[in-house]
Amino acid sequence: MGFECPAPINSRSSEKIRLGHGGGGRLTNNLIENVFKPIFSNEYLDKLHDGAVIDLPVNRIAFSTDSYVVSPIFFPGGDIGKLSITGTINDLAMCGAKPLFISLALILEEGFEIENLKNILVSIKLVADKVGVKVVTGDTKVVNKGKGDGIYINTSGIGIIEHNMNICPQSVKPGDLIVLSGDIGRHGATILSLREGIDFEVSLESDCNELWTPVEALINEGIEIHCLRDLTRGGLTSALNEIAKSSNLGVFIEEENVPVIEEVKAVCEVLGLDPLYVANEGRFIAVVPEKFANKTAEIISNVTGVNSSIIGRIQEENKGKVLMKSLIGSVRLLDMISGEQLPRIC
Amino acid sequence: MGFECPAPINSRSSEKIRLGHGGGGRLTNNLIENVFKPIFSNEYLDKLHDGAVIDLPVNRIAFSTDSYVVSPIFFPGGDIGKLSITGTINDLAMCGAKPLFISLALILEEGFEIENLKNILVSIKLVADKVGVKVVTGDTKVVNKGKGDGIYINTSGIGIIEHNMNICPQSVKPGDLIVLSGDIGRHGATILSLREGIDFEVSLESDCNELWTPVEALINEGIEIHCLRDLTRGGLTSALNEIAKSSNLGVFIEEENVPVIEEVKAVCEVLGLDPLYVANEGRFIAVVPEKFANKTAEIISNVTGVNSSIIGRIQEENKGKVLMKSLIGSVRLLDMISGEQLPRIC
Repeated sequence: MGFECPAPINSRSSEKIRLGHGGGGRLTNNLIENVFKPIFSNEYLDKLHDGAVIDLPVNRIAFSTDSYVVSPIFFPGGDIGKLSITGTINDLAMCGAKPLFISLALILEEGFEIENLKNILVSIKLVADKVGVKVVTGDTKVVNKGKGDGIYINTSGIGIIEHNMNICPQSVKPGDLIVLSGDIGRHGATILSLREGIDFEVSLESDCNELWTPVEALINEGIEIHCLRDLTRGGLTSALNEIAKSSNLGVFIEEENVPVIEEVKAVCEVLGLDPLYVANEGRFIAVVPEKFANKTAEIISNVTGVNSSIIGRIQEENKGKVLMKSLIGSVRLLDMISGEQLPRIC
Repeated sequence: MGFECPAPINSRSSEKIRLGHGGGGRLTNNLIENVFKPIFSNEYLDKLHDGAVIDLPVNRIAFSTDSYVVSPIFFPGGDIGKLSITGTINDLAMCGAKPLFISLALILEEGFEIENLKNILVSIKLVADKVGVKVVTGDTKVVNKGKGDGIYINTSGIGIIEHNMNICPQSVKPGDLIVLSGDIGRHGATILSLREGIDFEVSLESDCNELWTPVEALINEGIEIHCLRDLTRGGLTSALNEIAKSSNLGVFIEEENVPVIEEVKAVCEVLGLDPLYVANEGRFIAVVPEKFANKTAEIISNVTGVNSSIIGRIQEENKGKVLMKSLIGSVRLLDMISGEQLPRIC
């Protein structure tokens, strides 16, 4: 969805969500039959049972959940639907798991346009089809006007792990290098500039995108992956801090290797933000042994079309801390933010 | 939680949720370390990865999701926490699956009391421990004051299927009998009487309870189960209609066999509701071959301590419809309600 169309409304229809759509009766059934099934129909969902019964091909799985409350719900580069499925796909991908099954639970505010709902569901379906995941079970609740904000979405996901690597923060080792999958800060800067009414000649778009495709490529190419982390709330700095704390090792990065595009720099300057703390929805870091680092950056760049680069390393020193050599050569501690910076960014 | 204490507030603490608690930074971490981990700590959750990595004992699973937006959040017989975990446990149980892993996603409104949050999480933990499920992954989002209603909860769950039965509406056969696990309407009547300020001399409590225990007993005793359905939104009538439609068979029940306690009758009379359509959160129906029906009712009664009874049968005639012989002997069509009856009941 481009910048031109932040809130698509089909003029033929102005049907709105009513409280009864969440009541479990005929209106709920109408919504399932006329809105959900035409978009998501598959052998699991169509049974309309209390849950989906699934035969898994392997026994090792990853399981993840996220709710999405982003405001505004339509933004350049995506919408809450695309965000809600890429977010959970990415959480599974960060476990090295191939995403297969997604649950979709909606909390709708009375009065929400059904046409907007359909557009959001179509966004979800497009990503699902690209990655090969199925929405197999779902739920819809409706809250009174003034007790929500249009639409909140929860997705949970199941992915299967088909390799023997143990991809997690505890697996990183001193000497490992950190590969960043692209420039940072686009998603947060996009949402905030929309909210604050900042306009640009050159349009800025969220980086919102699924990350299973590059992760699958790394696995298929035999990269020894120690840890993966997507750079959502809290941005690059939060992800690095989590790795430093979980592994009880030090993280050292060099600012000159962390790309930030001019538009993001401009928004951050106006709003007093540091791109190192701004949320992304389609960027991740891979921590790999030194000998795999160049290959890792090359594969990610090829698959995503975005330049990937080595930004730093894991070290014995300064356990639990993240240090950064700044552009002017000084070394700075990158601490967690307290968290007030960017509410409702995802 | 009893009627005496509808909104427990610990006087020692009046700490409230701030937007930053959902920002992914230090405040989010504080919430995880000081609130979530002390209550839910387990080997999966403690890794604080993007998702939980799980080795399953079998390949056949059930997967279900539900969001909970009940108002008020504390009520006689339970709270939104107990409701949110029993609901998803029950959805898995209705698939004949042993619930094992739960995800917990919270949407908190700015200003929500952290003490209330803790009480809700403790309710979740109590049910989890009773059933033997683990909260293995989670998420917390915070929305601005006026964009929520204190707390909304999503739980998703994974259960394992360790038998060869295909428990679903499509498995019911003409001649099967329908066993109801207890009296109906308590949950809906409780919530509505609280909302409408109706007071009773005899206290009325929600039937909110987990249903895996009775279902497990049926499986262990070798009952041939064709279908299970909990009687949530839309009540007994919705569940029967779903079975009739999914199986394309007829459902026939007798009103005199469907127990409703006096307090529920009284609330329904005052509010103009029909108990057959009122939500339950701890009642289900089991559809079984005639020869297993008495045993089924006996097992459920023994395990739950609530009288279970045979209320009707599946038939070839009146395909897709639910008919009821009323107390005065006439036969009445039980259609789906349109859905406006009971918003935010769960």
